[in-house]
Amino acid sequence: MNDVKQQKWWGWGTEGKEFSFADKPKFAPFVLERLGVDVTKAGGGAPSFASLDVPPSQLTDALRDKLVAAVGEKHIKTDAEARVVHGFGRGVRDLVRIRRNDLGRLPDVVVYPGSEEDVVAIVDACVEAEAVLIPYGGGSNIVGALEALPGETRQVVSINLGRMNRVLEIDEDAGLARIQAGVLGPDMEVQLNARGWTLGHFPDSFMWSTVGGWIATRSSGMQSDKYGDIADITRGLRMVMAGQTLELRPLPSYSSGPSVREMVIGSEGRLGIITEAWMNVHRLPEVREIQAYFFPDYYSGLRAMEALAASDAAPSVTRVMDANETAFSMANGKKSSRVGHLMSKAIQKVMEGKGWDLTQICLAFIGYEGTPVHVRYEKGLVGKFISAHGGMGVGKGPGALYDQKKFDVPYIRDFLLDRGIPADVSETPMPWSKMEEMHRAVTAAAQKAFDDCGVQGFIMCHQSHSYHSGACQYFTFAINDASEHNMETYDAVKQAIQQTFIEHGGGVSHHHGVGEEHSPWMERDISPAGVFIQRKLFEGVDPKGLFNPGKIIHDGVPGVSSNSVQPD
Amino acid sequence: MNDVKQQKWWGWGTEGKEFSFADKPKFAPFVLERLGVDVTKAGGGAPSFASLDVPPSQLTDALRDKLVAAVGEKHIKTDAEARVVHGFGRGVRDLVRIRRNDLGRLPDVVVYPGSEEDVVAIVDACVEAEAVLIPYGGGSNIVGALEALPGETRQVVSINLGRMNRVLEIDEDAGLARIQAGVLGPDMEVQLNARGWTLGHFPDSFMWSTVGGWIATRSSGMQSDKYGDIADITRGLRMVMAGQTLELRPLPSYSSGPSVREMVIGSEGRLGIITEAWMNVHRLPEVREIQAYFFPDYYSGLRAMEALAASDAAPSVTRVMDANETAFSMANGKKSSRVGHLMSKAIQKVMEGKGWDLTQICLAFIGYEGTPVHVRYEKGLVGKFISAHGGMGVGKGPGALYDQKKFDVPYIRDFLLDRGIPADVSETPMPWSKMEEMHRAVTAAAQKAFDDCGVQGFIMCHQSHSYHSGACQYFTFAINDASEHNMETYDAVKQAIQQTFIEHGGGVSHHHGVGEEHSPWMERDISPAGVFIQRKLFEGVDPKGLFNPGKIIHDGVPGVSSNSVQPD
Repeated sequence: MNDVKQQKWWGWGTEGKEFSFADKPKFAPFVLERLGVDVTKAGGGAPSFASLDVPPSQLTDALRDKLVAAVGEKHIKTDAEARVVHGFGRGVRDLVRIRRNDLGRLPDVVVYPGSEEDVVAIVDACVEAEAVLIPYGGGSNIVGALEALPGETRQVVSINLGRMNRVLEIDEDAGLARIQAGVLGPDMEVQLNARGWTLGHFPDSFMWSTVGGWIATRSSGMQSDKYGDIADITRGLRMVMAGQTLELRPLPSYSSGPSVREMVIGSEGRLGIITEAWMNVHRLPEVREIQAYFFPDYYSGLRAMEALAASDAAPSVTRVMDANETAFSMANGKKSSRVGHLMSKAIQKVMEGKGWDLTQICLAFIGYEGTPVHVRYEKGLVGKFISAHGGMGVGKGPGALYDQKKFDVPYIRDFLLDRGIPADVSETPMPWSKMEEMHRAVTAAAQKAFDDCGVQGFIMCHQSHSYHSGACQYFTFAINDASEHNMETYDAVKQAIQQTFIEHGGGVSHHHGVGEEHSPWMERDISPAGVFIQRKLFEGVDPKGLFNPGKIIHDGVPGVSSNSVQPD
Repeated sequence: MNDVKQQKWWGWGTEGKEFSFADKPKFAPFVLERLGVDVTKAGGGAPSFASLDVPPSQLTDALRDKLVAAVGEKHIKTDAEARVVHGFGRGVRDLVRIRRNDLGRLPDVVVYPGSEEDVVAIVDACVEAEAVLIPYGGGSNIVGALEALPGETRQVVSINLGRMNRVLEIDEDAGLARIQAGVLGPDMEVQLNARGWTLGHFPDSFMWSTVGGWIATRSSGMQSDKYGDIADITRGLRMVMAGQTLELRPLPSYSSGPSVREMVIGSEGRLGIITEAWMNVHRLPEVREIQAYFFPDYYSGLRAMEALAASDAAPSVTRVMDANETAFSMANGKKSSRVGHLMSKAIQKVMEGKGWDLTQICLAFIGYEGTPVHVRYEKGLVGKFISAHGGMGVGKGPGALYDQKKFDVPYIRDFLLDRGIPADVSETPMPWSKMEEMHRAVTAAAQKAFDDCGVQGFIMCHQSHSYHSGACQYFTFAINDASEHNMETYDAVKQAIQQTFIEHGGGVSHHHGVGEEHSPWMERDISPAGVFIQRKLFEGVDPKGLFNPGKIIHDGVPGVSSNSVQPD
């Protein structure tokens, strides 16, 4: 067997690594108060893998022989666990369905190409056999982009790019690296850092997501204010299609008609299999620090970020948490940590002296990178805006801690799910003028959905990814519902949130993608004519619907998913 | 008749405004030396309009009636001059052909919608009549994107958006303005400036180009380092298509599948008629200045710009001219101007003291915007890189003059053409690592083409539009060839330049677009699979090929242009 890393079949990340609140004394009381669940009781845990009814693979000998010829016997898997892992992303719906033995249409085979030539051979074989191809990176997708359509009668082939994991070359003059699509975030940064470079792309999924996956889903990382979204970072790329290979050379900008690069970015496997890309890379900065600030309330924080975006300042990270997320953040702090100490008596006293309502205070992080002189200059610029909007700095301790722990957050979800609390995230971009209205509307809509469903629920939010004209708001919600029908509750809440996004000037997603989960809202997001254009693109390039059919838009492919919820 | 401004039929810009060298004593000697032409002799000038053989309009009464119903009698023109003006852009080939009475397939009618509703009615009428639609903004296109295909047998309708010229609203929180597609650059800035805002988009064509045209061609302006290319500035838009209207709301970023916005940007009329857009706008900066610097040679200047792009500095303009363009710039200076005085004895003495070869020196402009404090900080950052690469600052006088006069440059071309000197421009994006190699190769290829054709020619270049990973190099070339075959000479030179772009890691164009002129190189630029993807998009959205057929890619539409040159 090959040594491509694989997530645990029943949850996020590495086997053996789990969330613990042992050293976080405020965590359990917080969850009890906000969700009514005592998490100190042992959780249900996942079922045994043996209890799952994994349907047999439908792979034909003919296609198997071709795939073996393409990559060799040891780079093909048809075992039940590999098929289950590759049949799902890591959205809460995925995890609940796996635990409930609701396995849908699993791939019939997982194949691991080691080179672009291997990918060409795989694609040729699948196209000839009229098999469905689904590319697989780290498996962290949360919008249902990795699953075959229910009722898919054709063979389904999952292509795991994990062996294609190298930084192939660095153009040091241009600050460009040619990187294979299957490399996981940490493995890529190790290779870049060793030569003094960084991609600067750190999504929450970083540990279990890949360059190809980031491109295919229009990813964005926490330092996008400086490094850009993946659409800004990706300059050239190669993609294997039916019978041909797209090659876009690395150009900083261009006027070559409708942007083919921007059609591949976000295509979620529907146009072909991305094999490598030329990405902007940057010299590791001399100084990198994240400063923490408190605001008396979320909307003051938002207004400060809006003012920063219009100013000469150019921080690398901007992030303000609403009161709920601030409270959660403090409850999730270790006893000995500086986050835990943020609300020291001294700081509390200062806040009370300012007349702040301590239940409304909001924590913000702002990142700085560059030479020491530049970081000092930027902090000075930013500081004035913070003060002007009533904020106060509390140093770099909390930010440093956040920075170390940010990739551990997904483990909390499995912990909560074990204890009957499904939790998920939903994020949307919007103009600055819609930020407050959106926050009010989404939190109200979620609360109404909790109430309508008769469950206790919790929703929190942060702003992140500032642009000139707007930003992203990222909502995390959890419901106290261990019932068999909890996915209906989840759907009701998720639908309320997505519908509110669209009605208040947001889009279906800022950086998670569309997949199956968000496709019902696409006509509301980019208008029916926009969906028409995407459909014509997909149908024209892939008339037989072999490349990850049914994602982004449903039409024009055999079968329509029943997984996702329907909008009003 | 309506009062939409119209360029002179035979050349650039406003009737009555022309280039003069009266107060530029070095201009005529420079042209005599470099091109062997004595421009002090009176030029040939354009023929009389009456001498043109304008073919009759093929507009049917049925379509005419529908267009009249859509916009009213006074917003339809079928007179010969309007048809000639709207049948061409302002590339040198266009101007030569008009002067030679080689009018091609002129539009049968020019129609001026006043609203999106008007555009819908026009599109409906044209689609029903199976007429070809060609959108027209300011008419400054230089890649043959405004001309119908030769031999087009269907009726051809030119849609001049000039009545749709208003800034409709400004979202002051988001820094977004909703702007009608037909507004010319200056008219738009007047409206924005009156409220304290600017788009920050200043292409050389600014006086005679529009918001819709910028979007349709992927324009870029001289301050793109700060404000971004038009693809960065454009956030939302509306486009009328056959039977439906695309509506993309203004979002700062998104993950909604392949970017429909980025398909419309650069579509050159092939997907529909853009009617309005939400554009990033910025508060007018407190300080705006352009500093001039000298480098001992062009490649030192390029290396300084590369270092700046990798640094913490963020200037608004970067531009270095090669030795030829620097010499031209000085020869084009007024007697009394500060550019003319740049080579004062004092400065010359300093340069000679540094051991510089005065025939190789290069002038650079770097722009700064922001608060006074910020501009001072940025100038300090930049200054260190200038010094490190052997450059020296010479103050803001030359930059201020350049800034005032930059939009007058196109008038020089008509002046030269009158005197037997066709001149044109060609630009390309590339990684920083290719800049020197490209400059050497293009100048050598152009010189070889001049020699092969047996003409005296001149080529000059500047770098502009810096990005993290690369920049644009912009070449201007002129040939001493007044013969009837001078367009063959032009083709040979242009082909040599474009071919060199592609062979040395550049693209077909950085910001002029593809049109007919560059379409032969598209497969070399974005690979055959990239052209396949664009073709499927066009064919899928517009199966009858009614929307500006034949531009960007030729295939799949009736008739293929013979206007443009063919690559090897």
